[in-house]
Amino acid sequence: MPLKRSWVESANSPDTDFPLNNLPCGSFRAADGEAHCGIAIGEMILDITALEAEGLLSLDAEEEVFFFGDWTEFMALGPAAWAAFRETVTEMLAEGAPDAEGLAAYLVPQADAKMLMPFAVSEYTDFYASKNHATNVGTMFRGAENALPPNWLSIPIGYNGRASSVVVSGTDVRRPWGQLKAPDAELPVFAPCKRFDLELEMGAIVGQDSEGPVTVGEADEMIFGYVLLNDWSARDIQAWEYQPLGPFQAKATATTISPWIVPKAALDPFRTTTPERERELLPYLREPGPMLYDIQLEVGLAPEGKPETVIARTNYREMYYSSAQQLAHHTTSGCPMSVGDLLGSGTISGPDKGARGALLELAWGGKEPVTLDSGETRSFLEDGDTLTLRGAAQGDGYRIGFGECTGKVLPALDDPYGGRG
Amino acid sequence: MPLKRSWVESANSPDTDFPLNNLPCGSFRAADGEAHCGIAIGEMILDITALEAEGLLSLDAEEEVFFFGDWTEFMALGPAAWAAFRETVTEMLAEGAPDAEGLAAYLVPQADAKMLMPFAVSEYTDFYASKNHATNVGTMFRGAENALPPNWLSIPIGYNGRASSVVVSGTDVRRPWGQLKAPDAELPVFAPCKRFDLELEMGAIVGQDSEGPVTVGEADEMIFGYVLLNDWSARDIQAWEYQPLGPFQAKATATTISPWIVPKAALDPFRTTTPERERELLPYLREPGPMLYDIQLEVGLAPEGKPETVIARTNYREMYYSSAQQLAHHTTSGCPMSVGDLLGSGTISGPDKGARGALLELAWGGKEPVTLDSGETRSFLEDGDTLTLRGAAQGDGYRIGFGECTGKVLPALDDPYGGRG
Repeated sequence: MPLKRSWVESANSPDTDFPLNNLPCGSFRAADGEAHCGIAIGEMILDITALEAEGLLSLDAEEEVFFFGDWTEFMALGPAAWAAFRETVTEMLAEGAPDAEGLAAYLVPQADAKMLMPFAVSEYTDFYASKNHATNVGTMFRGAENALPPNWLSIPIGYNGRASSVVVSGTDVRRPWGQLKAPDAELPVFAPCKRFDLELEMGAIVGQDSEGPVTVGEADEMIFGYVLLNDWSARDIQAWEYQPLGPFQAKATATTISPWIVPKAALDPFRTTTPERERELLPYLREPGPMLYDIQLEVGLAPEGKPETVIARTNYREMYYSSAQQLAHHTTSGCPMSVGDLLGSGTISGPDKGARGALLELAWGGKEPVTLDSGETRSFLEDGDTLTLRGAAQGDGYRIGFGECTGKVLPALDDPYGGRG
Repeated sequence: MPLKRSWVESANSPDTDFPLNNLPCGSFRAADGEAHCGIAIGEMILDITALEAEGLLSLDAEEEVFFFGDWTEFMALGPAAWAAFRETVTEMLAEGAPDAEGLAAYLVPQADAKMLMPFAVSEYTDFYASKNHATNVGTMFRGAENALPPNWLSIPIGYNGRASSVVVSGTDVRRPWGQLKAPDAELPVFAPCKRFDLELEMGAIVGQDSEGPVTVGEADEMIFGYVLLNDWSARDIQAWEYQPLGPFQAKATATTISPWIVPKAALDPFRTTTPERERELLPYLREPGPMLYDIQLEVGLAPEGKPETVIARTNYREMYYSSAQQLAHHTTSGCPMSVGDLLGSGTISGPDKGARGALLELAWGGKEPVTLDSGETRSFLEDGDTLTLRGAAQGDGYRIGFGECTGKVLPALDDPYGGRG
């Protein structure tokens, strides 16, 4: 599929994340001070909430769905509404659209816009579904012989995360305190995390409720779109707390998502299959078609006041399990899924050293620090570091991007209880 | 504190769960077909939503908070409002209240009322905080030498559960399907759970938002009240899936709570201390006062069409960590907590065999089946079994109860995908 041309000239550049083929969904603080829904087009945002308020959107819904400035109510309308809306907006923004002049009044420059959370996260689940990542981390935590748990090739391993900790790109992240136990210490101390890390992931956003188990094909239909996701991780807290019931406070400080939800429809041309199975999957996990996506990903790290170094480059197609498989597994027990559920893919690591999606792996637990362009080295994140994830699917003369997923590490508080402890 | 007498005569019986000293909060389907907030008093429910609609409640809130028929908005008003409201309702229902006759029109018999979820569960966290339970389960899963994980005496171990699976007492629970791997099998199968179990717990309901770490004292202030909680557990799914990231689908079928939230104020006379520390706690976990409660608990099991046998009797004071400690730990990483968060205490097991809060422990993994009064035995739950948790704090001539927390096990579906798989 070639570039679809828009009357918004900046959307026709091969270098924009947001051509007419994309139409990702975000929320921003509008001039009236309220949260508005918007769609990115080139360097601009089309103000969807304002268009709806003026009666310029023909949505088949009984009430205004964009009034509250996030996409939750729209998602609840379901796949047929998503497709009809996409067609409407595509026509409105296409080159030669008859009402381009009138619509131009609803464009806001992205450069001026403060982005907000694009949806209310109902619940957040994080998975562990890149074989390279699982093998690397398993080797460090449990030794090479026990690297890949026995269930890993059968189950898309996941755990429930904390929805309240999900923030939008641009939010600073405060280094957490927690219980840390040095390998040679008998007892833990309560202190600021020393091994603060990122995790490069994709996030799938569930756009439909379910009751009872769903098939992989049905799960794919339920997914509204995808975001970039950085699951900030406190490795020293994690190492001490995670047995036997899994990560808890190590993963609860923050999870950052990109401001733009790329609709599944925009990614359809980039579908690709999961890799060959090393163990035959149980029938309920088999995919009726290709459900991963060819999305090139990278992580940039910029120390305070210094230029950025790209420390990892990988691709979403490296995953062993797709989000649709993960969602189908999530429902096996009868677990009800809800509009606004967020599924983290798990850290995405490729086979090469430079393709690893976490500092833990890149610097191999601190043994092989990563050298930045500035000459500094990193085993884990330092205060003042800004992390930026980027991702795009490359089409013929256009690309489908997510915008930047960025966050800066603030130093730990001197006293997390502000003298109240 | 003695019994406070009410003009609702059934509230003065020593056998009621709901004397004037209690005033627990629930939601029920009212005659108008809508969800209403209610307060249990003896055998009746005082219709709070109707009273508010008629302007008969003087709440210091800008808008109606009971309109939607659950307690979420009221909880958000905070501890001062909780106390003022409690005083108001106590005066309204006290013996000799001047407007008793008028108020009687707002009483609904509990026997006629269909109870609903009393609040919207924001997020659900389950803990693992009874030392007897942790030791018993650890022995079975990991052997006696590794029974209690090294971190257990330092951390109130918890994991995030699935809020969407929390249901109110009276909801049937369908036996789940899942991945099961027999100890001697090489590969798992996808089949109905064979080791379906209960977990006897208390649930603490967070009534205030937080940002950043809170102290144990602040955490106690944030708790609105307590419920009984049954965390239905699929032990065979759990055994195969839970390493390395914790329980997931094994705990996602359903968690049942009692219909009545007992306010913290009603439990205040029954506060008791956590047991002596076997390892000194880090300062952030130390309690400024007694934060457990002396609440007698029991589990009844009734096979289909047969009478109930009480299979376990224990007490909430058996816990090693209080809910306030758990909540304080939950915030250490900066994890934001929200109105409506539900914290499961973890299974409550006493030291004696008959005081164990799960069939897994009572029947020791199937090796010592429990004999019911009917002569049947149970290692795990059978289809048609009805489980009922009960709990009460015993005062001087009155008791503070929660109502029954009950659910019946329905057989697994023949095909969970209804032919769509």
